[in-house]
Amino acid sequence: MNVNGASSRVLPKGLAPRDFENALQKFAVAIGDEWVISSENELKNYRDPFAFASADPREFAPSAAVKPASVEEVRSIVRIANELKVPLWVISRGKNLGYGGAAPRVAGSVTIDLGRMNRILEVNEELCYAVVEPGVTFFDLYEHIQGRKLKLWISVPALGWGSVVGNALDRGVGYTPYGEHSENICGMEVVLPDGGLIRTGMGALSHGKTWHSFKPGYGPSVDGLFMQSNFGIVTKAGIWLMPQPDFFVACDLHFERESDLERIVDITGELRREDIVQNTAVLSNAVRLISRLGARDAWFAGGGAAPESAVQAKLQEMGLGAWNLRFAIYGAEELAEARLKIAKRAYGAVAGARFESKKWDVRAHGAEEFTAAIGSESVQAGVPSLFALEVLKYRGEDGGHIGFSPILAPSGKEAVKLANLAGRLCREHGFDYYGGFSFGFRHLWSVMMILYDKKSDEHRAQADRLFRRLVKEAGELGFAEYRAHVEYMDLVGDPYDFNGHALRRFTETLKDAVDPGGILAPGKQGIWPKRMRENGGQTQ
Amino acid sequence: MNVNGASSRVLPKGLAPRDFENALQKFAVAIGDEWVISSENELKNYRDPFAFASADPREFAPSAAVKPASVEEVRSIVRIANELKVPLWVISRGKNLGYGGAAPRVAGSVTIDLGRMNRILEVNEELCYAVVEPGVTFFDLYEHIQGRKLKLWISVPALGWGSVVGNALDRGVGYTPYGEHSENICGMEVVLPDGGLIRTGMGALSHGKTWHSFKPGYGPSVDGLFMQSNFGIVTKAGIWLMPQPDFFVACDLHFERESDLERIVDITGELRREDIVQNTAVLSNAVRLISRLGARDAWFAGGGAAPESAVQAKLQEMGLGAWNLRFAIYGAEELAEARLKIAKRAYGAVAGARFESKKWDVRAHGAEEFTAAIGSESVQAGVPSLFALEVLKYRGEDGGHIGFSPILAPSGKEAVKLANLAGRLCREHGFDYYGGFSFGFRHLWSVMMILYDKKSDEHRAQADRLFRRLVKEAGELGFAEYRAHVEYMDLVGDPYDFNGHALRRFTETLKDAVDPGGILAPGKQGIWPKRMRENGGQTQ
Repeated sequence: MNVNGASSRVLPKGLAPRDFENALQKFAVAIGDEWVISSENELKNYRDPFAFASADPREFAPSAAVKPASVEEVRSIVRIANELKVPLWVISRGKNLGYGGAAPRVAGSVTIDLGRMNRILEVNEELCYAVVEPGVTFFDLYEHIQGRKLKLWISVPALGWGSVVGNALDRGVGYTPYGEHSENICGMEVVLPDGGLIRTGMGALSHGKTWHSFKPGYGPSVDGLFMQSNFGIVTKAGIWLMPQPDFFVACDLHFERESDLERIVDITGELRREDIVQNTAVLSNAVRLISRLGARDAWFAGGGAAPESAVQAKLQEMGLGAWNLRFAIYGAEELAEARLKIAKRAYGAVAGARFESKKWDVRAHGAEEFTAAIGSESVQAGVPSLFALEVLKYRGEDGGHIGFSPILAPSGKEAVKLANLAGRLCREHGFDYYGGFSFGFRHLWSVMMILYDKKSDEHRAQADRLFRRLVKEAGELGFAEYRAHVEYMDLVGDPYDFNGHALRRFTETLKDAVDPGGILAPGKQGIWPKRMRENGGQTQ
Repeated sequence: MNVNGASSRVLPKGLAPRDFENALQKFAVAIGDEWVISSENELKNYRDPFAFASADPREFAPSAAVKPASVEEVRSIVRIANELKVPLWVISRGKNLGYGGAAPRVAGSVTIDLGRMNRILEVNEELCYAVVEPGVTFFDLYEHIQGRKLKLWISVPALGWGSVVGNALDRGVGYTPYGEHSENICGMEVVLPDGGLIRTGMGALSHGKTWHSFKPGYGPSVDGLFMQSNFGIVTKAGIWLMPQPDFFVACDLHFERESDLERIVDITGELRREDIVQNTAVLSNAVRLISRLGARDAWFAGGGAAPESAVQAKLQEMGLGAWNLRFAIYGAEELAEARLKIAKRAYGAVAGARFESKKWDVRAHGAEEFTAAIGSESVQAGVPSLFALEVLKYRGEDGGHIGFSPILAPSGKEAVKLANLAGRLCREHGFDYYGGFSFGFRHLWSVMMILYDKKSDEHRAQADRLFRRLVKEAGELGFAEYRAHVEYMDLVGDPYDFNGHALRRFTETLKDAVDPGGILAPGKQGIWPKRMRENGGQTQ
């Protein structure tokens, strides 16, 4: 433990410095001195690497971090925090980029970093699941499976350095048929805010073998309570994996006209419901794909939004369409061929659509060879990568980004409504509209990034203004986000207002019951414990 | 309101008769005199039609029933019950056969019968969902869809007279690819035990259009809390429907040897994970299929378990195997053919397996014609029926049954372990082993019915003894049930004991927070409110 820099430390509001020091000492006794981090230098890792729009960078800074190695250590930390009323924040790998990274909602929180709890406890090839601790990254799990030559595929988000469990709990998205990650959690172990320990679903059977086979269990199921939440700390979870398919067909479609959007969404929505398109299909506009090349300066040196003519020229050069759809087909060869034929027929109805596909016999390749060969298509095959980081250079070498992610019904008309609004607001605020849609089974995630130059205060403030306008005006059209940056967690929750925010009041009731001390991740997703609601301490 | 028979009425323990009469009068003011049922004769409909093993038939009898017509009436009832501490029980259609029917857990409860709330609020053909009130039956929804000639299929359980919503909330099972009914609920409206009203998920957006497209919403998701639970009264829900497939292929397989079980389960489990078998495949032993013919007396007139030779003779006569598997294939013709080919190849590995299939071009038939033609295969095509009632005559004209439904991992070895135990215990107790397994995506429901003669007290007591042995000995092998008859709700919950029943204690904490009066369905699935836990009033 290094208590240097204590003078400039951000303590939680209302906590006496003496109590804080006392807590650090108790943490050190519980988990070992070297795993309590309190030097200002080391604590930088526990802030938002994109230091978003706040004028005061200390607003989302922790006071300390603790790194437990076991469930029992997590329980000890929670008990100490309750005793001394120390707000906690929990990260698995802290890579929730665009949503705050490792940064806590409440300044001065002690961050529990679960990175040392990184054991892969089981990979069951027969029944196709893994049981992992929250510190396990997508790279870790992928390499473990490859190392053992198991015939299993994982599902990975755009960046593979994050936590398998943490990503799923925050309802992250991947690009295989198992891409709705929260849907593929089966069975959790959870440390409760009072230090209690539960296993959900069939995990409550001490001698059962079905913990990771059947999600619901007996009686009400509580798993949903631990997603995007501050109701408990998940210390292990079962994750369903996909049996390795015999064939993999990568499909790329390019559509000529912006006005094709409505048809594309309607067709893809239908193909998703019919399980012809099996995975999270991704539809991207031109700017989204162009931004992968890196700095925009290379083709447009001005400020503000790039003129349409410049975007068009770049788009022509790259051979892209106004909209570009990527999905894949998985499985036995006869099935893959049948799906491909049906998909080609369906998109053939859009004039000028170009359909490219590339088929791989997965069995014929070693994993490494396959990975190398498919290159940037890799996320659709569950191969983790960091390719997506390139886009951050689009507006400045040290670029920031903020995700705007409302949910849509898979309806062309709805997509057009949102794209028109987003395009207009981006231009008005001097940003290029980086836009697209990811297709869940029954919904769309709108994917939109505001890419800005972190070095420019004005640019950052402008990104903030754009984001707030988007929330407001999209909200008026009925669109709301499923996820939010720590800075916007209250804002994004506000439109969920049926019957005077009855759902939020209900979750607050639950929060107070399971966390009477109000110590665990106060304010996460807009849920505040009683002591902070009434005092107006941190919120409102 | 008819208060005849008040003298023999079963009142809730601890409730003064004057308070009870007061409550009835308030209910009558709130919802209309004619919708408060309290005559002994009419209340018979609110008991368990199979009057299971209890010596005292009043143990699971209600004191009255109320039939609200609207959400506001439900809220009024709940408020009155809180004021006077009247325990409530909630039924949608009361058809939860084998699990207690309409009967309440706590004697003297007032049953809220939601049967009058039977509006189909929306059927969205484009996005493939319906929004219904709890009084809507599978027959209602099916006929509505056929009447409008919508190209949508519903998923139905073995009996079609139950509630679409109630069945899904109790985690009922159907036989199409949408057969895990609780997984296909998307968006609920819930009256809370204090009279509050919430909409879950995206329903919390007053102006949104995604309530029935995206399950999670923003922040923790609470939907699981209202399944098999006493945390709230669901007053409407979205249900995902299946797009009508172009082709339907009914597959029936017969396997010669009892010892084929392990292979069959392993193969089917794998085909389910690979989505070759798309729906809830049902594996049945000989007795299960023979019982559909009705009374056993027709081929074996003795008491106790039928001798193996008699079963074998019947089995030969009917052309059945020791195990018989039924599933279906759905979708475009090329895909259906490919799946059929793969399935045939897979089961070809089991010596002596007979594979029968029948293909239908769904588009070529009107719905009525198709229904008539497929006959008893109809549940796999989402056509509601009451065929399954026939089995109740197996052991007596007025037969009872109790379901024993543990969950298994989809592993052949596990299935063999359970089948051996169940077969042995059935024979020891004088019952034929009516057994089988239904294949979920990642688990098995063991399907087993104890069929007994309701007229015989001894037979009923013997069924009770068998059930208790099954729970105990299956429990020792790690198997536990996902659902239970009101009489066994505590018993079945007991093995869920990790960390001193920590999960139950957690759900009790939640229960006390959302239902501080402890009025809603006390004891459902073993969850008791504080006042009944501490007083030992109704439980333990």
